Amino acid sequence: MRILITGAAGFLGSHLSDRLLAEGHEVVGMDNFVTGSRENLTHLIKDKQFSFIRHDVSESITVSGKLDAVLHFASPASPNPKSPFGYPNLPLETLKAGSLGTFNTLDLARKFNARYLFASTSEIYGDPLEHPQIETYWGHVDPIGLRSMYDEAKRFSEATVMAYFRSKNTDTRIVRIFNTYGPRMRLDDGRVVPNLIQQALRSEPLSIYGDGLQTRSFCYVEDLVEGIYRLLISNEHQPVNIGNPLETTILDFAGIISRLTNNPAGFDYQPDNRLGNDPQRRCPDITRARSLLGWEPKIGLEEGLLRTIAYFKSKMGLA
Amino acid sequence: MRILITGAAGFLGSHLSDRLLAEGHEVVGMDNFVTGSRENLTHLIKDKQFSFIRHDVSESITVSGKLDAVLHFASPASPNPKSPFGYPNLPLETLKAGSLGTFNTLDLARKFNARYLFASTSEIYGDPLEHPQIETYWGHVDPIGLRSMYDEAKRFSEATVMAYFRSKNTDTRIVRIFNTYGPRMRLDDGRVVPNLIQQALRSEPLSIYGDGLQTRSFCYVEDLVEGIYRLLISNEHQPVNIGNPLETTILDFAGIISRLTNNPAGFDYQPDNRLGNDPQRRCPDITRARSLLGWEPKIGLEEGLLRTIAYFKSKMGLA
Repeated sequence: MRILITGAAGFLGSHLSDRLLAEGHEVVGMDNFVTGSRENLTHLIKDKQFSFIRHDVSESITVSGKLDAVLHFASPASPNPKSPFGYPNLPLETLKAGSLGTFNTLDLARKFNARYLFASTSEIYGDPLEHPQIETYWGHVDPIGLRSMYDEAKRFSEATVMAYFRSKNTDTRIVRIFNTYGPRMRLDDGRVVPNLIQQALRSEPLSIYGDGLQTRSFCYVEDLVEGIYRLLISNEHQPVNIGNPLETTILDFAGIISRLTNNPAGFDYQPDNRLGNDPQRRCPDITRARSLLGWEPKIGLEEGLLRTIAYFKSKMGLA
Repeated sequence: MRILITGAAGFLGSHLSDRLLAEGHEVVGMDNFVTGSRENLTHLIKDKQFSFIRHDVSESITVSGKLDAVLHFASPASPNPKSPFGYPNLPLETLKAGSLGTFNTLDLARKFNARYLFASTSEIYGDPLEHPQIETYWGHVDPIGLRSMYDEAKRFSEATVMAYFRSKNTDTRIVRIFNTYGPRMRLDDGRVVPNLIQQALRSEPLSIYGDGLQTRSFCYVEDLVEGIYRLLISNEHQPVNIGNPLETTILDFAGIISRLTNNPAGFDYQPDNRLGNDPQRRCPDITRARSLLGWEPKIGLEEGLLRTIAYFKSKMGLA
């Protein structure tokens, strides 16, 4: 297949590009580098099957040649208000990537009669009142909250994807991506994994916000990409959760990082000043992915963290 | 003030235009007639203070001369899947009016440093789990449901309006409009008020879907317009519910219509085949409107219905 990926210079987009190339597909990457990184593309552009278009998806998209699939992954994705790459500091960019960007990519898929896959998120469940989150759960999102530029844009995109599927017969798919970690995460986007690993590698105490008992379910990026690829080649049109159902408290998570990095500095408890409505728990029900795609995560937390720590070491000049 | 209203040929837009003209403002109406009606403009275009631009708000908007206020009311608004004017049959138009249309009107307000008012809806509360609905309630909406092209577009618009308010200092307002009725409702858009009144005026039995015990809170259009006008001239930036808190069952409502029209034909109970997730109850908490705007509805259900019936009689050639 010849496949367009928007957000190809991002953490997930670049890994997905790797996988698609490895499967023998031709990949057209697109990014505007608002949060994506040129560095994530350096190995990709050496591949003859990879080409790149620098473009903002909120502007009308033209691609020469035919496309067989369109994957819309472009969007700021970090909730951290202190990072310049956090969506709270890129509100209009985030809202446009998840509305104009969605229309533009869907129109492109329609034009080529291509299959379409939208990168949705566990954030559409908001601060969930049900655990674990199953795909039929409607979510609990504040439409005017401080995270709403992201949550509502992703919900709007899902509604739009389903409208194209239902009224235009566009061959759509929706993946709801839960917390993912691995090499090529931005060091500077303020998310918990890069923050903790960097502190640990600097032998600093690890910052724990609040009591650290809030849980996350961290999926290693290779597992995630496997699930997305299976969804892409499937014919499933309803949303599918892809994430690791193993719930870990931030405290346990920080403990494992300390151990793997031999960091003796311990924890530094901070007041919980994260962005409003930061959910206390988030955990995917992956029954649908298991039964429809035969997918489940394979890589354990320690193994995934070791690989991620190795990447961060190298990025920080410590390797 | 010189005020742009999108959706000026619609039920609410045309009444609001009347009111603004009566207050001495200059009104620029805009509509693409997808669901608006030319007939609603016939009396307006006779007014020298009124001008009209035929335009689709999902395309970039240019207006000559300065604007002091921008009111974004354009959108299909009937949930009826059987009507060609229902949003289930206009999914992309609805999604675009509530995304591209919102960006375009906000950009226009920003350009002129004008105040902005967005017509949101009680539908952002979805099928609510709390009664009555207060503005701080986050709502209960299925992002991929059969009504999501409308509900999610309105929620997305609210998120966008708040993003412009917070990050661009745009002088925004959000009104959440509950069920409204009155003259100039479309006879053919399949909503309950025109349906029941037309049946009554034809001396037919009134169709009741399900047991008729689902409630609605019907606000007469003149009351609604008063509330919107007060919000427009206020400096309130948080969403404000405007609607009538008097909850009435559909059965009671139909009974009043039968009596006022002297229709002896009774009721015709039908299976509840309305669009998925049609809420069982919807009722505004108007504490915020009362305290911030000194507003509450004044026109009783009988008086409002008598005026509405008179309008329908005339439209049906029965007056």
